[in-house]
Formats: sequence, structure tokens, C-alpha cells
Amino acid sequence: MRRTSTELSDGRELIYFDRDETAQRTDRTDVVDARHLDATATASEIRHDVLLDEWVAIATHRQGRTHLPSADECPLCPSREGRLTEIPAGDYDVVAFENRFPTFATTVGSEVPEDGDGRRPGVGRCEVLCFTSDHETPMSQLPSERIRLVLDAWIDRSAGLAEAPHVEQVFCFENRGEEIGVTLSHPHGQIYGYPFVTPRTRAMAEAARRHRDRTGGDLFADRLKSELADGSRVVASSAHWVALVPFAARWPVEVHLQPREPVPDLPSLDEAARDDFPSIYSTVLRAMDGLYDGPLPYISAWYQAPVRVDRDLVSLHLQLFSIKRSAHKLKFLAGSESGMGAFVNDLSPERIASMLRDVRPR
Amino acid sequence: MRRTSTELSDGRELIYFDRDETAQRTDRTDVVDARHLDATATASEIRHDVLLDEWVAIATHRQGRTHLPSADECPLCPSREGRLTEIPAGDYDVVAFENRFPTFATTVGSEVPEDGDGRRPGVGRCEVLCFTSDHETPMSQLPSERIRLVLDAWIDRSAGLAEAPHVEQVFCFENRGEEIGVTLSHPHGQIYGYPFVTPRTRAMAEAARRHRDRTGGDLFADRLKSELADGSRVVASSAHWVALVPFAARWPVEVHLQPREPVPDLPSLDEAARDDFPSIYSTVLRAMDGLYDGPLPYISAWYQAPVRVDRDLVSLHLQLFSIKRSAHKLKFLAGSESGMGAFVNDLSPERIASMLRDVRPR
Repeated sequence: MRRTSTELSDGRELIYFDRDETAQRTDRTDVVDARHLDATATASEIRHDVLLDEWVAIATHRQGRTHLPSADECPLCPSREGRLTEIPAGDYDVVAFENRFPTFATTVGSEVPEDGDGRRPGVGRCEVLCFTSDHETPMSQLPSERIRLVLDAWIDRSAGLAEAPHVEQVFCFENRGEEIGVTLSHPHGQIYGYPFVTPRTRAMAEAARRHRDRTGGDLFADRLKSELADGSRVVASSAHWVALVPFAARWPVEVHLQPREPVPDLPSLDEAARDDFPSIYSTVLRAMDGLYDGPLPYISAWYQAPVRVDRDLVSLHLQLFSIKRSAHKLKFLAGSESGMGAFVNDLSPERIASMLRDVRPR
Repeated sequence: MRRTSTELSDGRELIYFDRDETAQRTDRTDVVDARHLDATATASEIRHDVLLDEWVAIATHRQGRTHLPSADECPLCPSREGRLTEIPAGDYDVVAFENRFPTFATTVGSEVPEDGDGRRPGVGRCEVLCFTSDHETPMSQLPSERIRLVLDAWIDRSAGLAEAPHVEQVFCFENRGEEIGVTLSHPHGQIYGYPFVTPRTRAMAEAARRHRDRTGGDLFADRLKSELADGSRVVASSAHWVALVPFAARWPVEVHLQPREPVPDLPSLDEAARDDFPSIYSTVLRAMDGLYDGPLPYISAWYQAPVRVDRDLVSLHLQLFSIKRSAHKLKFLAGSESGMGAFVNDLSPERIASMLRDVRPR
């Protein structure tokens, strides 16, 4: 893999990840963004919700962001004569760049005082990661070596964002499908560097701490052991990874992909686990697409330990989930879920695991 | 108000709440459900999610529930000759009845062992509350005395469900709008009696406990005091209630309605606060409908103290929120919210408060 960092015309960083170790990104069209974009103002702040003791991002500059452009206006396709996109090059393998409408940015132009009355500037970093230059090929259809390249980019950016000022938590994720509000259909994900430990990670760290205090064991290792012993919710497994529907799945389709050997984050994965990942990820994604015979809207979320704290408590795992509860019905988050935080799942985790195991490869 | 408890043909309880103290619900058509429904089997269970230390309900019998029937098939309208609904009477003011497809039920026919390995039967109770017999009149357009009757029903059912076996938390809420997945458009809400303290309530109790340990004060009273002192997010107020956009609003439209005098739950509201509620509730609902010039999809959620614990920590308040972030755009819960639990709000709380104050009455 070869990594080339360049800069867009408004100063945002763009990084090419090329499979070809000898790839040269020195061509003018690779490195010069001819669009003359004005720098955008990021007026983001984070506010402390006292009733739940959680941080919320208020990012008012995001209201005007691009909304469902047609395929021939896609800003994530390579540039070509007469149509310049976010990626100056005429082709690419995988590319990461700072979001033009970020929730968090390295420089936040705002009058928010540093820690004044539960308000802080929304300092952090948000990047877009394009999985392929091909607008029509989703992650599930990429060949293994290209999924491996995406994994390398996730690893690189996880390490990179962890070093950005004020970042406490790095989150690599993919939203797919208009049903969950995706505004760009080009295969891509996002990477958020939050200036706080997120609520889910904090809850996992606290649960893991209580589990360790009570049993002496590691929550993630013990969970994996008991799921493997039971077996009814295991969807697929390989030398280094296990894919399972969690015992208390909260989404109609939910799969966790967990390394057999617990590690805190993506950069901590060893070479063998990295090599072994593309095949099982692809298997699970294709099974999900086969469930209702068509591309399943999903969220793919990499949970990692926080940057600075509780690194011995939270272990890396991927959560894949969908709001689709049958071929033609969606699960909505209404009062019980969005209000009370109490999830109601109409599908049995064991049944979904069995359906996913039974999907014929596509 | 007159309260009459009856039974549907499958054994579920139905309660009429009539404004007229002398209303007689002894007519055959009021009390006899002529449909001869078979009793449904509720195979609900709750499972412990070890990674987050939270309970999730698995309610597989709910997959077949009624989905968006047309108005002339509405099961919540009064019954008439040749078309029998859930409500046997030819008319009603407000009516509550046990849900035919409940997430939790008093009797759960299942082989789930009591507390076996993080699984427990989904014992509890779920009711539907019809706000009016008129299919076309939403809560925001009901006259004050009818909103007061709905409040009386919420109070009655909150007390009633708190006494049902195993119920630890009562939640009265209304989901409105197809955008948030409402399957029946008749003006109605739901009441859930959960067999556990819900994640949101637990988080509020913990935040309130830490606040009290640190400051000696009451979190809800102190929050209200500081919002009133600031004033920029106050939408409306009356002798007994204040409506405000929270400082760290997580939804594009979010209003909290809090009594000036903290109480743990709806049954604890005194007569003056009860009388004072309909007018401010109606004002806020109409302002929300006026925001984008049409009925706003919303969730209205009453948070109350748990039934048995932390009753001195959690205070009653209503949260009204919408996923609508502009006239034609919705806020989706994607990776950051549904995965990490970290909310990103594109609208300023102060701006929304000001817009709500400025809406002309409709």
C-alpha cells in the first residue's frame, strides 16, 4: 500500500491509498484541486446535556450540505474533464479527505469559550473515506484485496485521528441506503474524531468494569466464549474472526464481528487478523444482502477503545445493523427507543442468525 | 370524570373515561365486544445486553401487527353497524385498552425461565390510549377540557400500571406521523409498563445523583432555574409549567415541558398543575405545527420516576421532539446517533426556541 497526502483547494487534507506500492501521485491532476473552493466556516460546538450527562454536537453550518445529488453529479467520483469533484485524480483506489461540512474540525471558527458553562468548541476531525472509485460497486462486492485496502485506510485514519488535537474517540462507520438517510450513494464511509468519549463507549467501559470487578474476567472475551459455546447465534467464523448475532440484538438485523484475540482498536490488529478480515466481512455483507433479496440498508460501525482512557476495558468489534424488519417493512425508532432508550425487537436473534447462515452466496 | 372498566372479547381490559360524571356505560353496545376474538399469545421476553448492561425486549409475535389501515378500517374509531372496532361503543371521549400485540403483557405464554442466563419473561403491560373518537382531530386541536381528560387518563393509567405485577417503569407517549413509523393515524398514544428501569431513566437518575453529591441541589429544579434565568430557550410559561428548548437539544425540534414544582410522576401533580396543563400543551403543539406550516411528525414522551427506586432523583417532565429538520428534510439517526449514541443537531436550540415563540397561533 502506498499513501500520498495532498491538499484540496480550501486547505482540507486528502490522502490517496493505492494498492500499487509504486503508484506515483505526482501528476498535476492528482494533487491540484482546480476548483478554487472558498474555505468553509465550521461553527460547531459541543454542549453538555445535564439530564443525561452526555455531550451533544450542535453543528448549524451543516444544514446546507449536499443532499442526494444525481449519479452524474456525484462529488465522490473521480474528476474528469469539465466535471471536478472532491477527488482531483482521474482514478483512485481508496481515498480519505476531510469533510467539507464536518461535525467536528481541527479549526473551529466560533466565539464559543473553551469550557464555558457546559459549552466547548467542536474541535475534532471528520473525514470521508471512499471505498472505490466505482460508483456502482458496493463494499459487499469489492474483491478481498480492495477490502483489505479499505481496512488499511481505516487503520491509518484511526491512528491519524487519535493524534489530532482534542480527539478522545475515533469512530469509523458506513451508512448505506436512503432508508437511513444517506445523502450520497457512492460507496463510502466516514471517520469521526470526537472531542469526548461517546455515550456508547462509556456505557461499554462501565459495563466491562463492573463485569471485571464481579468476575475477574474480560467482558468481550467472556461474551465471545459463551456465544461460541452456545453456537446458535454464530453466523460465520474464521481463524481470527467470529460473526454473531448478539444474544440481546436490538435491531431486526444485527451482526457483531469480533476478533478472537481481543485488541483495543484497529491499529492493534496483527497482520494475520488483517489478512483474514476481508473474506468474513464480505461473507456477512453478502448474506445480509441476500436476506430480503436486495441491497440491505445498513450501518456498519467500528467500536474502538477511547484514545486515552479505559483501553484495557473496551475491545474492538464491528457492529452491522439494519432497520429492515421484513422485505417491505422498516423498524422505526419511536417513543420506546428514541425516548426511553428501550429497544423492542420483533425478530428473534436465533432466527436471524439461522436465516443469515442459510442465505445462498450471491 | 367517570371511569368505567370493561372487558374485550379476548379478555383484555378496556376503560372508558367520560367527561360527563353521570355517563352510563351500561348499554350492551358499550360493554359487549361482539367480535369473538381469540386470545392472542404473547411470546415476549427481555434479554440482558451484556455489552451495554441494558435490557432489550424481544417480541416476535408483533411482526404480524396491523400496518397502516385505511381510514375506513381504523380499529380505533367507535364501532358502528357492520364495522366492529377495538372500541365496542358507538362513541367515546377517551378510552384506554390493553394492546392486542403488546410488547409486554400481564400473562406471557412462553417457556422462558424466570431469570435464566439473562433472559426473563416479558411481563408488564402495554395499553393504547385513544385521545378522541374523532379520527381527524389531532391532540393539538382538542379543546382544553378534552386535553384535561386525556391528562386524567394518563394519571389513572400511570397509577394503574405501576401496580401491575413486575412493572418498574411507566411511560406514557404519543408517536405521531408516518415519518416516524406510526401505523395508525387515529389520534392516540400508548402506555408502557416496563419490567425494568429504562436506560434513559437510569441515566437521568445517575446524573441527578452525581449532581446532588456534587452540589447538594436537585438536578431538575436547578436546570429549570438556570433556563428561566437565561430565558433564550424558553418557549412559553404559565403559572405551573415552563416549556423550553433544552440547552443541549439533540433533536432538530425539541421542547421540554416541566412543572415549576418538581414531582416524581403524573399522579403526584396537584389539581392546579393539572388544570393549568392543557393550555400550555396546546400552545406548544400548535407552535410546532406552525413551524413548517403543517402537521409536524413528533414523539411526545412523559418521563416519570421509576415505580420503586430513585423517586427522589427523577422528576416528571414531558419531552416533545421531531425528526423534521426543515420543511422538506428529516433528521435520520445514522452511525453517530444509532451507533455511538452521540447526537449531532444541525439546528441551534436558541433559534428553534425563537422560531417557536414567533409562530402565529393557528
